[in-house]
Amino acid sequence: MLVRATEDGERFVLTDPSAMPRAAGFLWNRLMMMQVNCRGFAVARFMQPEPARYTHAPNLEAATFMQPEQPYYAHHPGRFCYIKDEETGAVFSAPHEPVRAKPDRFEFSVGGSDIRWTVQCLGVRVEMEVALAADAAVELWRIRVTNLSGRSRRLGVYPYVPIGYMSWMNQSARYRLDLGGVVASSVTPYQKVEDWPRQRDFNDRTCFLHDREPVAFEASREAFEGEGGLHAPDGVRQALLGNGDALHETPAAVLQYRIGLAPDQTEEYRFLLAPARDDADIARLRARYLDDAGFDRARADYAAYIAHGRGVLRIETPDRHLDRFVNHWLPRQVYYHGDTNRLTTDPQTRNYLQDHMGMSFIAPSTARAAFLHALSQQEAGGAMPDGILLAPGAELKYINQVPHTDHCVWLPVCLRAYLDETGDDGILDAPVEDGAGRALTAFERICRAMRWLLGARDARGLSYIGQGDWCDPMNMVGHRGKGVSGWLSVAAAHALGLWAGVCERHGRAGLADEFRAGARAINQAVNAHLWDGEWYARGITDDGVAFGVANDAEGRIYLNPQSWAILAGTADARQRTLMIRAVEAQLETPYGAMMLAPAYTAMREDVGRLTQKFPGTAENGSVYNHAAAFYVHALYAVGESERAWRLLRRMLCGPDEADYQQRGQLPVFIPNYYRGAWREHPRTAGRSSQLFNTGTAAWAYRILIEDLFGLKGCADGLRVAPQLPRDWQTARAERAFRGARFDVHYLRQSGVASIEVRVDGELLDGDCIGDIRSGRSSRVDVRLPAA
Amino acid sequence: MLVRATEDGERFVLTDPSAMPRAAGFLWNRLMMMQVNCRGFAVARFMQPEPARYTHAPNLEAATFMQPEQPYYAHHPGRFCYIKDEETGAVFSAPHEPVRAKPDRFEFSVGGSDIRWTVQCLGVRVEMEVALAADAAVELWRIRVTNLSGRSRRLGVYPYVPIGYMSWMNQSARYRLDLGGVVASSVTPYQKVEDWPRQRDFNDRTCFLHDREPVAFEASREAFEGEGGLHAPDGVRQALLGNGDALHETPAAVLQYRIGLAPDQTEEYRFLLAPARDDADIARLRARYLDDAGFDRARADYAAYIAHGRGVLRIETPDRHLDRFVNHWLPRQVYYHGDTNRLTTDPQTRNYLQDHMGMSFIAPSTARAAFLHALSQQEAGGAMPDGILLAPGAELKYINQVPHTDHCVWLPVCLRAYLDETGDDGILDAPVEDGAGRALTAFERICRAMRWLLGARDARGLSYIGQGDWCDPMNMVGHRGKGVSGWLSVAAAHALGLWAGVCERHGRAGLADEFRAGARAINQAVNAHLWDGEWYARGITDDGVAFGVANDAEGRIYLNPQSWAILAGTADARQRTLMIRAVEAQLETPYGAMMLAPAYTAMREDVGRLTQKFPGTAENGSVYNHAAAFYVHALYAVGESERAWRLLRRMLCGPDEADYQQRGQLPVFIPNYYRGAWREHPRTAGRSSQLFNTGTAAWAYRILIEDLFGLKGCADGLRVAPQLPRDWQTARAERAFRGARFDVHYLRQSGVASIEVRVDGELLDGDCIGDIRSGRSSRVDVRLPAA
Repeated sequence: MLVRATEDGERFVLTDPSAMPRAAGFLWNRLMMMQVNCRGFAVARFMQPEPARYTHAPNLEAATFMQPEQPYYAHHPGRFCYIKDEETGAVFSAPHEPVRAKPDRFEFSVGGSDIRWTVQCLGVRVEMEVALAADAAVELWRIRVTNLSGRSRRLGVYPYVPIGYMSWMNQSARYRLDLGGVVASSVTPYQKVEDWPRQRDFNDRTCFLHDREPVAFEASREAFEGEGGLHAPDGVRQALLGNGDALHETPAAVLQYRIGLAPDQTEEYRFLLAPARDDADIARLRARYLDDAGFDRARADYAAYIAHGRGVLRIETPDRHLDRFVNHWLPRQVYYHGDTNRLTTDPQTRNYLQDHMGMSFIAPSTARAAFLHALSQQEAGGAMPDGILLAPGAELKYINQVPHTDHCVWLPVCLRAYLDETGDDGILDAPVEDGAGRALTAFERICRAMRWLLGARDARGLSYIGQGDWCDPMNMVGHRGKGVSGWLSVAAAHALGLWAGVCERHGRAGLADEFRAGARAINQAVNAHLWDGEWYARGITDDGVAFGVANDAEGRIYLNPQSWAILAGTADARQRTLMIRAVEAQLETPYGAMMLAPAYTAMREDVGRLTQKFPGTAENGSVYNHAAAFYVHALYAVGESERAWRLLRRMLCGPDEADYQQRGQLPVFIPNYYRGAWREHPRTAGRSSQLFNTGTAAWAYRILIEDLFGLKGCADGLRVAPQLPRDWQTARAERAFRGARFDVHYLRQSGVASIEVRVDGELLDGDCIGDIRSGRSSRVDVRLPAA
Repeated sequence: MLVRATEDGERFVLTDPSAMPRAAGFLWNRLMMMQVNCRGFAVARFMQPEPARYTHAPNLEAATFMQPEQPYYAHHPGRFCYIKDEETGAVFSAPHEPVRAKPDRFEFSVGGSDIRWTVQCLGVRVEMEVALAADAAVELWRIRVTNLSGRSRRLGVYPYVPIGYMSWMNQSARYRLDLGGVVASSVTPYQKVEDWPRQRDFNDRTCFLHDREPVAFEASREAFEGEGGLHAPDGVRQALLGNGDALHETPAAVLQYRIGLAPDQTEEYRFLLAPARDDADIARLRARYLDDAGFDRARADYAAYIAHGRGVLRIETPDRHLDRFVNHWLPRQVYYHGDTNRLTTDPQTRNYLQDHMGMSFIAPSTARAAFLHALSQQEAGGAMPDGILLAPGAELKYINQVPHTDHCVWLPVCLRAYLDETGDDGILDAPVEDGAGRALTAFERICRAMRWLLGARDARGLSYIGQGDWCDPMNMVGHRGKGVSGWLSVAAAHALGLWAGVCERHGRAGLADEFRAGARAINQAVNAHLWDGEWYARGITDDGVAFGVANDAEGRIYLNPQSWAILAGTADARQRTLMIRAVEAQLETPYGAMMLAPAYTAMREDVGRLTQKFPGTAENGSVYNHAAAFYVHALYAVGESERAWRLLRRMLCGPDEADYQQRGQLPVFIPNYYRGAWREHPRTAGRSSQLFNTGTAAWAYRILIEDLFGLKGCADGLRVAPQLPRDWQTARAERAFRGARFDVHYLRQSGVASIEVRVDGELLDGDCIGDIRSGRSSRVDVRLPAA
């Protein structure tokens, strides 16, 4: 089997490095992130406070946001170990690169707090394993070499880390006997005086430390590689490495061990790879992590850190794949987002809010602080900025320098989930001081944000799009100040409706009426100007051209306006039926619902950047999971549960060999997109972007908890309203909620007309379990009508 | 022999790709530049109008100035051809990468207007050859395959261009039967609306066109490479390439030919590699260049373009290496600088002026226009900006965003050379309108620049350094507004002295007196505050600390203040003797004079960025040839001709195998530096930076013409004052000067007391040949005293 899960469901295992060459796992803590693939290539960043690298490409890389579908290549950063048969000279490398020898056995195994490989070749088994420290930017590696050949062997073992082109200004590397490993030094290039204070304390060294002294070493990539190339390095072919240094040459860390192994004998090595500031820092790392106790303690600490993210739901369903994903992987991904803010110092406001919507289910106090922090950066006029600054000196970068008009929408959308989950209505009255020193309550601030949304509309009552809204690359629709967004209009209506509910609950009926009226007005305007006959248009350009309409040859229908028109109640039942039919016909694929179709194949100047993206990637006709999640959410909202389940299931890459292989990803995270343009580019459709930064995780988790299993918080307690797939006869969910635990047993039964809920045996009146008491456990039995 | 020159001296040949793996040649026209090394790796850029790439790294590369010592790696951009023996399956590649097979014979041959390889392996000879179009961004390739094995052969021929990771936004590639080649398309990433108008007409395609239809092709790198790796690609190991496309995958262009070759039979292929805008553009390229006549015409046109840069001096001396370098290579490098402005749109002002000082010897009208253009960007206060903008919309980038205080110095220094060479004193009266519309003559503008220099001094009379002067990374000496520069002070004195001479010649004696008085005052201040006992200090920091002084453990002595103190007449004879002795003891190395010593090994916060550079590279203790050239110039100025010659000769990498190998460069250009820190890092000292952008070229050419051969223009004509090496008995120089030609024969003769010059047999009174007439040829005999 190409991909399988372990019995306990906590690991995923891939058995062929060639079938899914990009398949990867990721590890993180608050200071760093590492995505390492089955072949040994790695992408790693740490914060100081901006994201920085400690292993580098062999050339000068651009500073950029994390790229989807980044290509790998022979000298790409990675973590490798060459093994040489000292008798025959034969060489292979684990995990797979750079030698690419065909293994006799291969296992790439991704767990929650470590990633492992088992590679068998030439009668030798190599086990590699990496974890991180819980609270430091440190990789902890273990390599075990076992002789399986039934006879004595003499082997060379060469751990190899290509440290790469660190700096054009200053780079070097050498073996340090005193520190016990290779230390590479560099100076982050700077040209301006004002950069220096920011850079002076950078961790400009990279150290690769060992627990056992090697027989030889090399610190220069070129010297190690020689004419042989990385697939057959001169260094490994020779008897001994050259013990060389790197003097402004490309730094590398290679260690050489020579061992004799009796049959079945194993040797184990431990290594530490980390950025560091200076020698003292490196000595501290060695002292803390490299003795047996320290290494094991660090491993346990990291497992404990990851365990904090286990979330509020454990399930047992007929779908083992879903169980594994929901119990182990999805909350882990949500936790990553909420606990690290994607390792940026200026997360986009909409991302930050949604990531903390997800965090409401994992660590609500973190979410609370984040919502208040975001509100503290609200502009005087009620608008939200494009990014939320998290560190002193942080700046809006990349796409955050382009103004977007949707950020206010996410405040009620996300805060509402937090309120439902926690019941912490007190947050509404929390004072929030902004940059100008003005204190308003969170409630007042969000009311202002809602008024800003109401104000940012044209004479027709439709929301201006400016240079972009969510799914931002539509930068020319309204940059001249006239164009409007269909999605943003219905999203504003939805946000206003949600906020009206909060106002009501908060005893502010007048405000509730005001915002409800606003939502109604927007819905009317949308129906008057954007209903295209079978679906809603995506918007109207500065020049008055409606787009995302039946007349368009490309970008004819967009998913987001339909999803949100359902959520906002813009569409009536007849419209909904038409829209859902159109989405099915034009947007659904085996990998989920595409964001738009047909994908643009050339620049449309009145739409802008989106239309320049490659058809089927990123937003242009991809299965953009974040958008697809809203459609699923909307379908559940109107009881289209079978259709919703079908699409939700596709979002989690399924347990089918061909499907895994096509997506090229293990189901240990939801990527931001699967390639779309399924009709135009069937060869590549379905491929994972491999990018685990996505608001999808929070939404998928929320949908599973609240919509599918129907265990959603409300003002009075826990509402039970599941929409399980028709073919599930039974299911079980363990739900943690406001400190209480509910052991929920679902059962389909003939003769049941509508859902019946019993709490500890007692039939519930209505669907809401009230009187939630922290520390109490209850059994909940849910009877569902038979399919 | 590892390196040899062809008989005619016009080509350099390297015979081992492993001995000097970075050895490279470079080709350019006004639209593009290509540096291609002996192994096939290439760095190429074209202008649109900013420098752009048409073959890319496999990852996202930073936009940056051209880097010295850039590392290569397996998937680095390059141009390759795999050859497969269809009978045995054996494969090699020309030039050397990616297979790296040991060749039976290898020749990398760099000429003025083309670069060639001959690679012999498996009984097959592959000849590859590249030239550029003269007036378009087009590479013209010819590949010849010859059967040398004496028996019939069946071969596969696979030209391979790794087009690389073009864009994260949109990239694809496919074979186009209609256009006759692989066309890769991309969209340059943009995020901001305002970027679009600038990018809409970008040449975002890369085409690789053939003159003969292949049997198969591949357009995706990963598909071509497979598990085999670039050194043994699956594509080549299979019978036929997969005829695939690249859909947002890494584009590549691979063509497959299958041929049968009788003994000694040759097949020839022609290819064109170019950026392009659209299909029509590609069709035009094909029509213009890919038929026999067009290809040959383009080759001839390019040779003619390069021939425009032949310069004003042809020599015949006992030093064949010097002859070749001066007759073929040095003027070519000077021409490159002056004709392309280093392929930037904002050349640094000091570079721009010096490059056109060089251009005074190649194409004086270009130089004239450049001087006036530079002056048109003079600031109202007389200062010169940090860069000269050449294109509409151009901006100051990179280091040009850091203010420097030395730009005015270069106006008289460079214009004086132009005046001497051309006699075009009319330029002084040319009106120059600045950005504010104010018209002043060039003369008036330079007088203002001189007054700005006089004004930008402290109470002691020393020049402020601000955030840097020439050799700019000294960014913390004076950023608080107090620190002064020893070099800039003496450079200002020198500039004022030179300008005083021009004032005099221009009939402005009063101004001449004013500027001479200023120069004297500076010299006095320098002697009072910066003479350190045996040499001049480099400066005094904001905190009043003199540096570049005997007490400093690092950066104890700097070359520039000594050279310019000699030129400016700051130093008296005693001081000169001490300085020259100190330079010899502390700065001279087998590769030339280092810029400072000992190199800094750690940040010195009161000096700044320079001290963060790697010891021995860039300015920090390297043999920075530009600075070294001024020292040579200064030595000639005071008659230290033997010492000057010794250092000048080291600048041109010498005809000694070990020396070539240590420098790793063919003598086809002077690099901006050779690694220094010779005492600290002898293993790497002497290595060429491989960067051919350097003001050194112009100065070396001027020194050779004016100082060594002593054929310098002056107001009245051509001054003959050679300082030939003592061991040259004879030499000959053909000097073009203001339209006339002088055939100069040098002869050392015993009995000659001082230099005697005869023009067409008649003894010259003094050393100046007057009455220069365009079109006239004269024989000049120069008798020199015997050594």
